Amino acid sequence: MPPQLRSFIEVDPESPFPIQNLPYGIFSPKSQSSDEGDNSQCRVGVALGTKVVDLAVLAEAGIFDGAFDAVAAFRSPTLNAFMSLGPAAWRAARAALQAALSADGPRSLAGNASLLRACVRERSDVALHLPADIGDYTDFFSCREHATACGTMFRGAANALNPNWLCLPVAYHGRASSVVLSGAAVRRPNGQRARDPKDPSQGPVFGPSTKLDYELEVAFFVGTGTEMGEVLSIEQARDHVFGCVLLNDWSARDVQTWEYVPLGPFLSKSFCSSISPWVVPMAALEPFAAPTSGGSVQDPPPLAYLHDARYGSYDCVLEVAIQPAGAPAPPVTVSRSNMACLHWTMAQQLAHHTSGGCPLRPGDLMGSGTISAATGLPAPAAGSGGGAGGGGGGRDAVGERGTRAFLLDGDTVVLRGYCQGDGYRVGFGDCVGTVLPALDRGEFESDGVQ
Amino acid sequence: MPPQLRSFIEVDPESPFPIQNLPYGIFSPKSQSSDEGDNSQCRVGVALGTKVVDLAVLAEAGIFDGAFDAVAAFRSPTLNAFMSLGPAAWRAARAALQAALSADGPRSLAGNASLLRACVRERSDVALHLPADIGDYTDFFSCREHATACGTMFRGAANALNPNWLCLPVAYHGRASSVVLSGAAVRRPNGQRARDPKDPSQGPVFGPSTKLDYELEVAFFVGTGTEMGEVLSIEQARDHVFGCVLLNDWSARDVQTWEYVPLGPFLSKSFCSSISPWVVPMAALEPFAAPTSGGSVQDPPPLAYLHDARYGSYDCVLEVAIQPAGAPAPPVTVSRSNMACLHWTMAQQLAHHTSGGCPLRPGDLMGSGTISAATGLPAPAAGSGGGAGGGGGGRDAVGERGTRAFLLDGDTVVLRGYCQGDGYRVGFGDCVGTVLPALDRGEFESDGVQ
Repeated sequence: MPPQLRSFIEVDPESPFPIQNLPYGIFSPKSQSSDEGDNSQCRVGVALGTKVVDLAVLAEAGIFDGAFDAVAAFRSPTLNAFMSLGPAAWRAARAALQAALSADGPRSLAGNASLLRACVRERSDVALHLPADIGDYTDFFSCREHATACGTMFRGAANALNPNWLCLPVAYHGRASSVVLSGAAVRRPNGQRARDPKDPSQGPVFGPSTKLDYELEVAFFVGTGTEMGEVLSIEQARDHVFGCVLLNDWSARDVQTWEYVPLGPFLSKSFCSSISPWVVPMAALEPFAAPTSGGSVQDPPPLAYLHDARYGSYDCVLEVAIQPAGAPAPPVTVSRSNMACLHWTMAQQLAHHTSGGCPLRPGDLMGSGTISAATGLPAPAAGSGGGAGGGGGGRDAVGERGTRAFLLDGDTVVLRGYCQGDGYRVGFGDCVGTVLPALDRGEFESDGVQ
Repeated sequence: MPPQLRSFIEVDPESPFPIQNLPYGIFSPKSQSSDEGDNSQCRVGVALGTKVVDLAVLAEAGIFDGAFDAVAAFRSPTLNAFMSLGPAAWRAARAALQAALSADGPRSLAGNASLLRACVRERSDVALHLPADIGDYTDFFSCREHATACGTMFRGAANALNPNWLCLPVAYHGRASSVVLSGAAVRRPNGQRARDPKDPSQGPVFGPSTKLDYELEVAFFVGTGTEMGEVLSIEQARDHVFGCVLLNDWSARDVQTWEYVPLGPFLSKSFCSSISPWVVPMAALEPFAAPTSGGSVQDPPPLAYLHDARYGSYDCVLEVAIQPAGAPAPPVTVSRSNMACLHWTMAQQLAHHTSGGCPLRPGDLMGSGTISAATGLPAPAAGSGGGAGGGGGGRDAVGERGTRAFLLDGDTVVLRGYCQGDGYRVGFGDCVGTVLPALDRGEFESDGVQ
């Protein structure tokens, strides 16, 4: 997209949402008496600067020219219907929107005051909702620096990467029911952890996690689904990726360490996973395609079914900031990273995911796994924080309120990410959550048997 | 339920579906021209002998007396709406159905020929569908004998049980999109496995799994859901269990061994999981409550939040039978076990699942994990097959067609389970799947790099 593209609605150069982006989300008008949206009025919009543009209204006005059933797709309370239509519809929608919202050109709506009154709203006048009905949520583990850091912590530096890690995009199934929208509070979970992590024979205790952590991830939504048994090549897989959001895969490390052998993380991850509300289309990220931090070819090369002729990632800056309870704004940036450190591409992840026939559904969410420099790993691996992503003052310093090994009640964690263009940014907007104290379980918070 | 309860529709004493059972399912009438049901006509029914009773028709006839909105619940194409209503509605529905279908009593429909013509269908005249829209699928690992066998295989007999296993119901998140109804074909998956499992440094190959296995499990559906952050006590959890089905959690052992460290099973499990179509209500299993094979108290006792004052399981015989391609019926029983060998109760599983605040939705599916004697483990653990469940001729003997270490293409695997009452059985019916050959991946079936 040429950078000179310009919308008739003015957009700050540091806004994540210029006309070059146009991310999709689900919104509803706020009622006059409350900050809640009217759920029965949910429909699809795009973010443009500080505005939200109502695509249901634009569809009814005919701007999508019948390229697909735009009224059905955009009157819907989730993006699933639009996602399922596939790349031709996505391209048609994006082209029509950029033409309509452009300052110039024959299809610009700049002069159509009545239509603009009907379709343009202030962001502050609407409530945002989960963008999709998420059928399944899969979390990958695709950042080499993070996998190395985890492996070093658990197995030492000599055996840091498991033998399978460089051969396939390692992943696990996550919990779809606990994916929430940015802004939702994050309740510190109670859970079982080892009484003495160095001596598991001493058994567990139950109570509030003492090692609550964030994880900075980028996640993508599956667009068109697949049938059971349908296998996607890398090139086909690429066309099934609809767009990306930021994901904070909140993790209770003490619970995780105790529960995860041999079947993987369970309750340590499934109490809450926050995503940013606006789904950035792949076409908006495409101008920022870049080699991975490991180089422009994959080393070692994977098996044939995972060979990606367009191997690479995106030059997208990622940041984590923390604002302790009562501390002055703004939140303090504690970590910086970049999508370029992902070793596996989204196409490889999806090709692998379907390689045995597992069916995909529109709206399935696929996390990248923690992107390294922002990892909130316990001390032995924290060194990775300064490594891959560069920059950052170290995750521990959070301003006058002191340091953080793990999150405290009242901490607000903000994830941000953007690609820097020439005079504009294509960004995700914030993915935010504030930690609430654990529920008081009373007599259940026992360190022994009742 | 007193065993003398008798329906006016005759039921064979060996049928799994007497009036004491009345399991719920989703059916649609078959059209005259095909064996496919009309999906737009899906609604709720109960199985009774060889018949299916249409609850939408009975609801419209008013037999549920307004105890809940029966027309909405039973006109629905999934059980989710009914599941969400909770135990009072479930009890009311069951009481009304048993009264209506009973041979005797004032509410018996025995003499109402016109209503019976409208609501009773032959099983062979309807198509069955997945009983619920499954939001999330969790698979536990709750059979001690199976966990011990797996642990022995991976870590030796001295360290067979992980330190966490006796302290919490170990589980992982499974894939909801690949849960299919009994009868669906099971395509052998392609996947990555170690070239030499004893030497992972030799890297992987890709191709059809050579170690395709079944897993005999009982799974339950969550009825009423929970909000995010809502925690269930054991007693509360019990009221959230709607009913049970059989589950065959088909597994590709070679893929599993290579992929599962450190995040657990992924594609080795998510190519297909088959469930039986009829959901047996907990009230139908209750008369068969029995101590677990470990005894009537849990040893060692778990932490307070997992203390189940009604600790126990069900005396429910479970069987696996295999019929190789071209072999004469019936399938040969290769393994027998019993639900009594489950160490963790469903109430404990749900209380644990919600202990950190993870929300449940109506229709969530919770697998027990493999129930031991039926485990299809590779040779080192196969000894467990003769242990817990007793009986059985060993899983390897499948009749004239020889023996099985793992499943061959064309094998049909049948799971069965029932509780034996006095003159009747409360059963699940069959959970069946036939193995199809792997898809030909052509050039992708490479053992090296393209």
